[in-house]
Amino acid sequence: MASITQAPVSGNAVIGQSGGPTMVINQSMVGIVEVLRNVKGIDRILGAQHGVRGIIENKFVDLQNVPAERLEQVANTPGAGLGSSRDKPDEEYCHKILSVLEENNVRYFFYIGGNDSSDTCRIVNDLAKREGYDLRAFHVPKTIDNDLVHNDHTPGFGSAAKFVAQAFMGDNLDNRALPGIKINIIMGRHAGFLTAASMLARQHTDDGPHLIYVPEVSFSVPKFLTDVEEVYRRYGRCLIAVSEGIHASDGTPMMSKLAQEIETDAHGNVQLSGTGALGDHLSNAIKEGLGSNLRVRADTFGYLQRSFAGCASPVDADEARAVGRKAAELALEGELAEASVTIQRVSNEPYKVQFKPIELSAVAGKTRTLDRKFIVNDCNISERFHEYIDPLVGRLPVIESLRLNHG
Amino acid sequence: MASITQAPVSGNAVIGQSGGPTMVINQSMVGIVEVLRNVKGIDRILGAQHGVRGIIENKFVDLQNVPAERLEQVANTPGAGLGSSRDKPDEEYCHKILSVLEENNVRYFFYIGGNDSSDTCRIVNDLAKREGYDLRAFHVPKTIDNDLVHNDHTPGFGSAAKFVAQAFMGDNLDNRALPGIKINIIMGRHAGFLTAASMLARQHTDDGPHLIYVPEVSFSVPKFLTDVEEVYRRYGRCLIAVSEGIHASDGTPMMSKLAQEIETDAHGNVQLSGTGALGDHLSNAIKEGLGSNLRVRADTFGYLQRSFAGCASPVDADEARAVGRKAAELALEGELAEASVTIQRVSNEPYKVQFKPIELSAVAGKTRTLDRKFIVNDCNISERFHEYIDPLVGRLPVIESLRLNHG
Repeated sequence: MASITQAPVSGNAVIGQSGGPTMVINQSMVGIVEVLRNVKGIDRILGAQHGVRGIIENKFVDLQNVPAERLEQVANTPGAGLGSSRDKPDEEYCHKILSVLEENNVRYFFYIGGNDSSDTCRIVNDLAKREGYDLRAFHVPKTIDNDLVHNDHTPGFGSAAKFVAQAFMGDNLDNRALPGIKINIIMGRHAGFLTAASMLARQHTDDGPHLIYVPEVSFSVPKFLTDVEEVYRRYGRCLIAVSEGIHASDGTPMMSKLAQEIETDAHGNVQLSGTGALGDHLSNAIKEGLGSNLRVRADTFGYLQRSFAGCASPVDADEARAVGRKAAELALEGELAEASVTIQRVSNEPYKVQFKPIELSAVAGKTRTLDRKFIVNDCNISERFHEYIDPLVGRLPVIESLRLNHG
Repeated sequence: MASITQAPVSGNAVIGQSGGPTMVINQSMVGIVEVLRNVKGIDRILGAQHGVRGIIENKFVDLQNVPAERLEQVANTPGAGLGSSRDKPDEEYCHKILSVLEENNVRYFFYIGGNDSSDTCRIVNDLAKREGYDLRAFHVPKTIDNDLVHNDHTPGFGSAAKFVAQAFMGDNLDNRALPGIKINIIMGRHAGFLTAASMLARQHTDDGPHLIYVPEVSFSVPKFLTDVEEVYRRYGRCLIAVSEGIHASDGTPMMSKLAQEIETDAHGNVQLSGTGALGDHLSNAIKEGLGSNLRVRADTFGYLQRSFAGCASPVDADEARAVGRKAAELALEGELAEASVTIQRVSNEPYKVQFKPIELSAVAGKTRTLDRKFIVNDCNISERFHEYIDPLVGRLPVIESLRLNHG
């Protein structure tokens, strides 16, 4: 698309970042800024500090005059450079947002985030329409959970998946060197995409992860113990990937379930991330069920999955930039008053995607989950998942074990 | 040194790997193999499977005929390729080791590991001398804890420190985007070097880690809460690095101490690594002491610190290879019957090191800790530590926050 030099409506633009940061969320922000810059009719490009919270508190920063070189550095930096927010605005909150946008003559609103953020965009846009205020509201996708509907995948996921893959590649060898049962807890409340990415670590048939548990299927401790015992008997070790969001058949997250069973452990609120509790509970379940003499360890990868510096997937970084640019271009074209930019895969070899707008209501507040066809025996991920995830993660480190004939 | 083509004694060589694997322990193994290969008098180069355990069980693999290209790939692969062991041999165990070495006409014994491994080397060597069996026993240093005496630093540390630095670089930005109190637990039972490495993440005065707790000073929960409160008041957030080995003034590890206080949490044995318990206990202490409404999160970096694929420090990898080569060269020179290879820093700019042999008894079983001059107010690491650690870690990712004038 040729660059547009005249905006359809004159006014200011606001960019906000929302929810959990990713390794590439700043790419999207910079993508928007570079398209809007030097366009006649766009007077100021403002960054909302800490997302919607910054808007209602009228806390903006100037993005128009940040030197291009610095912007480029920021694009390559993990974390939400503008600050993020966990606020989930209701209609009243959105009213406040709109009135501040009006006060500042904001005509272009870009919100980078997950499905909650697209919902905020939708409500603000609806309110503006009702009031007859000419606003263009665009949602730019971002989530390591990869759970936005109508998208092949989402920016942020590929880099987080790369981190998980590299972590399992190394941990598989660590577990081979000092055999035992090792549990790694991966982020993902409702969708198992990131946990499934651990399968990228497998090169040889006896490589881990040997078991992979995602939130798309119910988790049962007795079945878990049987699965672990079987793998342990075969390989003398067992490497396990578990989603933080696994839940019992009644829908209760295992985190609360296990915390209840171990009723003595009742400190603080049960939270999924930022605690090692689920891993420790599962370790204890294995020791109690299979033998207290077993070497059982649990690591919870935690915030490193979304923030680790120097691990971004190049494809993911490029796409994050491109969805930002696309949103800005759509706003400048002037035909759409609102949209969420989606990623569609056109072909796999060579890997090629398209960025297509879709109405906000189609994406807002909905959650996409892992296709059941990838889930094997409720405890593993099929090799077919490779085809889907490989291009998103890009090149992984080349490693090689001795592959000695043990025995 | 010119390559030696004739070994001083004819016989076989055994290489073993011990203790926690690192990202570069295979470099040392490959360094030994490439020097010993094609030397007259070295008949077979054997790898002991799972360290001393493999020796007493007579489980060896051939390293002589592994193709050079594959060896090079293995060198660049994390984890102990030969398998590792946690066994800590006593004199009787060492007798068994020696008798198996004799059976196999082993005249060169290389053991890659920490201070326990050098002690094993020492005992085996003493027994051989007593029996009049001509054995050359060499210890090759390896530990992410960086706790070997008579060494400027140890192979494995630089790469683990690089991981910790990159993790904190990203997590600092994550914590800035979504402010709160964040605790990260770092490996290191007695020495705080790896925890101290988190300071590499600081670029600007308000960057975290804001507090760093190492095992070299006693830990007190009331002081901890005061420290955290002060930082939180100043920055509205607080990023904390805590060594897994912190202990109370009576020497009890905080891990057991806190587990006792929270007496309801009595499942399993208290262990330092492979559990999120310490982080969770400290989170709870903050919520109880400073307010349950605070956003407090804890991550335990766990085994990723020593195993993550694709994060090795190039300097660390080179040095790990070099200490292996040096040990083999010393053995072939024939002047020394036993030694531990140490790393001495000759100059900092340009960074230059020497590898010097030292008698096994000087290193065996001793633990080096962080110099007190680097510890500030019992809760931080001074900027002077940079000079020491920078060359070991090498280039870190270039990141840049917007540095907007918040307000």
